[in-house]
Amino acid sequence: MQNDILKKIAAILETRKLAEPETSYVASLYAAGINTVLKKIGEEATEVVIAGNSGDKDAIIHETADLWFHTLVMLAQCELGPEDILNELDRRFGRSGLEEKASRQKPG
Amino acid sequence: MQNDILKKIAAILETRKLAEPETSYVASLYAAGINTVLKKIGEEATEVVIAGNSGDKDAIIHETADLWFHTLVMLAQCELGPEDILNELDRRFGRSGLEEKASRQKPG
Amino acid sequence: MQNDILKKIAAILETRKLAEPETSYVASLYAAGINTVLKKIGEEATEVVIAGNSGDKDAIIHETADLWFHTLVMLAQCELGPEDILNELDRRFGRSGLEEKASRQKPG
Amino acid sequence: MQNDILKKIAAILETRKLAEPETSYVASLYAAGINTVLKKIGEEATEVVIAGNSGDKDAIIHETADLWFHTLVMLAQCELGPEDILNELDRRFGRSGLEEKASRQKPG
Repeated sequence: MQNDILKKIAAILETRKLAEPETSYVASLYAAGINTVLKKIGEEATEVVIAGNSGDKDAIIHETADLWFHTLVMLAQCELGPEDILNELDRRFGRSGLEEKASRQKPG
Repeated sequence: MQNDILKKIAAILETRKLAEPETSYVASLYAAGINTVLKKIGEEATEVVIAGNSGDKDAIIHETADLWFHTLVMLAQCELGPEDILNELDRRFGRSGLEEKASRQKPG
Repeated sequence: MQNDILKKIAAILETRKLAEPETSYVASLYAAGINTVLKKIGEEATEVVIAGNSGDKDAIIHETADLWFHTLVMLAQCELGPEDILNELDRRFGRSGLEEKASRQKPG
Repeated sequence: MQNDILKKIAAILETRKLAEPETSYVASLYAAGINTVLKKIGEEATEVVIAGNSGDKDAIIHETADLWFHTLVMLAQCELGPEDILNELDRRFGRSGLEEKASRQKPG
């Protein structure tokens, strides 16, 4: 698995904090303020829903990658990174599995 | 970085395909059909937006972990996994960085 | 057309500001704070997307009604009402039609 | 209240079914297929969430009007109209008020 790609993207996202908005998509997102990337997250989530509904695997991969990418941009903008999310997931599921979650939350 | 946690969660999610909906949150999501987890993705994305707006780092981590987790459930349900998303991100950003993206897409 | 139903719901929503959260769904939404109804709006919008994707007319009507209803609750919570939205729509489209919008905004 | 504006917009939206996508925003939405307007609904719902979070009344009105407008476009595309939603709301709340809803659904 290309495990280090999240780390690598996070590093690239840090360098973009010094870039000009005119020359970098990410720098333009930073410059536009947190609400702009939050809107993108809402938009990309909707595209994941549409792709998931269609069952088209290429579309699901493409849109989920877009969604994850924009959450990484948001994290960078908030001085957080993928390791914060992975640590949180590890804390929840790394040891005892998903049972705790099962008892805590029901779909609906 | 706890890199392998995505892989580990994916493995747990596979085992849940054999579990009873009454005993497992994930099995109950599977049993309810793809639209149920897609609704959760829309819901969790909204919670990320609210957390990002608040600037509360703990909430951002918590809600982003929820969002990523439910995308992993959807991927499992579609016979996909985190490696498909990581490979796609690697394909986009692993070599040439984000420049290509910058030229392709503008926020707004 | 049952035009006055929006006005009627707005009036009911005002009376719920005096109700106990235990006895009224709307009062429980008010008591839970603005973020709770905003989450419902995100959730209902996702359900509209899924219904629209399915092409099931009954589901589209049901989910769009849910979405509009929860926006009415949010408006009430913000001391606004449907007339504010209808006036805004009238301002935009009442006279000159949609041409102005067409020139202002492109999908994508 | 400008009650008839929903009816008026619905009538305008029908006329746009004969317009060229190049000359009309709505016609360009129709031509792009149902998923395009569904994405706009997801996007506008996110903007309502951000506006509601900010407490800025002008923004709330603006974004809610955008959201309602795009649901009207979707309804037109599905051969439905605002009267279907208003009738459904009337069916739910016109007689007995919101109590039935209160007993049926809890926030969460």
